[in-house]
Amino acid sequence: MIIEKIEAIPFRIPLKKASRWGAHGKRDAQDHVLIRVTSESGKVGTAEAPARPTIYGETQRSIVHIVRDTLAPMLKGVDALDVQGYQAKLAAIPWNPTAKAAVDTAMHDVAAQELGVNLARHLGGQLRPVEVSWMLSLNFADDAEFVREATDVRDRYGIRAFKVKAGSDPAGDIRRMKLLREALGDDALLFIDANQLYAPDVAIRTIRAMEPYNLAMAEEPVAIGLGQWRKKVADAVATPLLADDSVFSLTDVRRELQDGAIGVMGIKIARTGMYESTRIVHAAEAYGLPCWIGSQGVSGIGAVASAHFAAAFRSVSYPADLSTPLKQEDDLLARPIDIREGRLHVADVPGIGAEVDEDKLAKYRLDW
Amino acid sequence: MIIEKIEAIPFRIPLKKASRWGAHGKRDAQDHVLIRVTSESGKVGTAEAPARPTIYGETQRSIVHIVRDTLAPMLKGVDALDVQGYQAKLAAIPWNPTAKAAVDTAMHDVAAQELGVNLARHLGGQLRPVEVSWMLSLNFADDAEFVREATDVRDRYGIRAFKVKAGSDPAGDIRRMKLLREALGDDALLFIDANQLYAPDVAIRTIRAMEPYNLAMAEEPVAIGLGQWRKKVADAVATPLLADDSVFSLTDVRRELQDGAIGVMGIKIARTGMYESTRIVHAAEAYGLPCWIGSQGVSGIGAVASAHFAAAFRSVSYPADLSTPLKQEDDLLARPIDIREGRLHVADVPGIGAEVDEDKLAKYRLDW
Repeated sequence: MIIEKIEAIPFRIPLKKASRWGAHGKRDAQDHVLIRVTSESGKVGTAEAPARPTIYGETQRSIVHIVRDTLAPMLKGVDALDVQGYQAKLAAIPWNPTAKAAVDTAMHDVAAQELGVNLARHLGGQLRPVEVSWMLSLNFADDAEFVREATDVRDRYGIRAFKVKAGSDPAGDIRRMKLLREALGDDALLFIDANQLYAPDVAIRTIRAMEPYNLAMAEEPVAIGLGQWRKKVADAVATPLLADDSVFSLTDVRRELQDGAIGVMGIKIARTGMYESTRIVHAAEAYGLPCWIGSQGVSGIGAVASAHFAAAFRSVSYPADLSTPLKQEDDLLARPIDIREGRLHVADVPGIGAEVDEDKLAKYRLDW
Repeated sequence: MIIEKIEAIPFRIPLKKASRWGAHGKRDAQDHVLIRVTSESGKVGTAEAPARPTIYGETQRSIVHIVRDTLAPMLKGVDALDVQGYQAKLAAIPWNPTAKAAVDTAMHDVAAQELGVNLARHLGGQLRPVEVSWMLSLNFADDAEFVREATDVRDRYGIRAFKVKAGSDPAGDIRRMKLLREALGDDALLFIDANQLYAPDVAIRTIRAMEPYNLAMAEEPVAIGLGQWRKKVADAVATPLLADDSVFSLTDVRRELQDGAIGVMGIKIARTGMYESTRIVHAAEAYGLPCWIGSQGVSGIGAVASAHFAAAFRSVSYPADLSTPLKQEDDLLARPIDIREGRLHVADVPGIGAEVDEDKLAKYRLDW
């Protein structure tokens, strides 16, 4: 399973509607990088690195550069099954999380293809349809439009889990939570992502005010550097805090587990790949914490990979945030993303099964 | 990779010389249980459960019983690759650690055979010769005999790492450490296992007195229930404490990592199998701790399985305690255990490669 070639191909797929979140976040297209790893026997592993300058400081160009000029030469000739070996090499280059995660995911795709099993089985689990959530961003004209997006998505895709962006407008956040619950009924799973924007006292009051509407989780309600103040928020509310910006690495995870503020471990394959994400699941399990799979807004390629991971581990027990491909004008997958009855259905083929439609790639690739 | 049959066969192989340790430990034979897992395609996974009544409260008969009457019917028909699935079933039966660990290890053997890769690769690493240590027990006539055992083993097998049983005789423990260092030279790696027998103040004085002889680790110097007193010992000495009796499960591991007394994570495949041991490695890595592989005195079957695990993970960085088969009068392995130049060499065949010599099994099996 020797690796012969690693490619990085930037692409851009427009979103149907711009996504807005947090203090600075806005995107109207998927400016991502396709990673392709080819083995000597001709197996091609596929993964995706989503450039998120305001989150990881990586850009589309920095990802293409580090993969082509540094990681690809470094990993040429390694064994795709020797995760310990190639991870030791990758460790020589700090940070660059989505670039390295995509390479690791594509390596796992190659290995599972060579072994003839789907990735969920390669990870020690079973492939099954994975329940997904829909992210409601802060880009809407009024409450009616906001609620209508949720009910439309429920009616069209059967999705019953919603992540609501919040943080800038606490009173509005509470009002929207109430409206959503009334519109969607008791069966819906609703949680907020405040992107660290609440002050601690505001977080406590706002989350408590949402709890009558069965708030399932509160993702990063306050600044992750707040230490004991953040712990105070966690202790003051019944709702578990969902870790995201606070758990970019296994070292972050150790600190969060020790601090005891978080109640659900957030994992994004886009930033920790298959190997580091597996280690994070196991560390969370040592503390008895369930896990949630976010997506970093990946397209179909990343969603399918994440679905294998979510399917494989039993402690990944929350709906996974893998519906972004439905918000795109198009997608690169040859086998279109299949979300129905609220679940992402993934083909049972060796590896990840994220083959790319070459015509679409030709259309959306960027050749600088 | 569907499991058709799981067998438990008790066997008894005499030791060349009785082993003595701790307060109550004495054994003059390997009274263990061979576990065989057969898949529908005819692959046979092999593992070994060492009965240790004074350590785990399991007996040879209790292991045979729980496997034959409870675990085997429970796992018939499961997929050997679906670790999450069969572990969820095993979780319904608490404790019985060596019985469940052996079943898990044999399942991994079947899965790796079906995939056509050796177990180290299946675990994400590479097979390589694994450095081993030799355990010097408390059964000797005088200091000269004690030291001669070490130099003989060094000369015969090239072993340069020694674990010295200690705890009942602190002054003698210090004297023997000095004699060993003088006889073996600076290159030897020496550590003690006090089996929880020192009082905290005695532990501090004894370990400090050994440190001029480059003591590498102190395994469970004091009672594991001592809490802050145990932490005080850890803080008072330079030598890292090696966890063993304190880390029988992932939950134990979480407590030890939080408490911060241990400096090296001890793992025994015989009690945590391949799955739980992998989770323990990852939890230890979250805290930056290196790991050590003990053996629970397993015969060749268990030693070979443990060697795959030790080879696979880079944070398993200490010599592994896998030389017990050399102390047996005979062994069940068809391919005899191969320790030379201080390393256990394992055949690169699909799975674990612990095929049993059927004539020897016929000779040593117990048919109650």
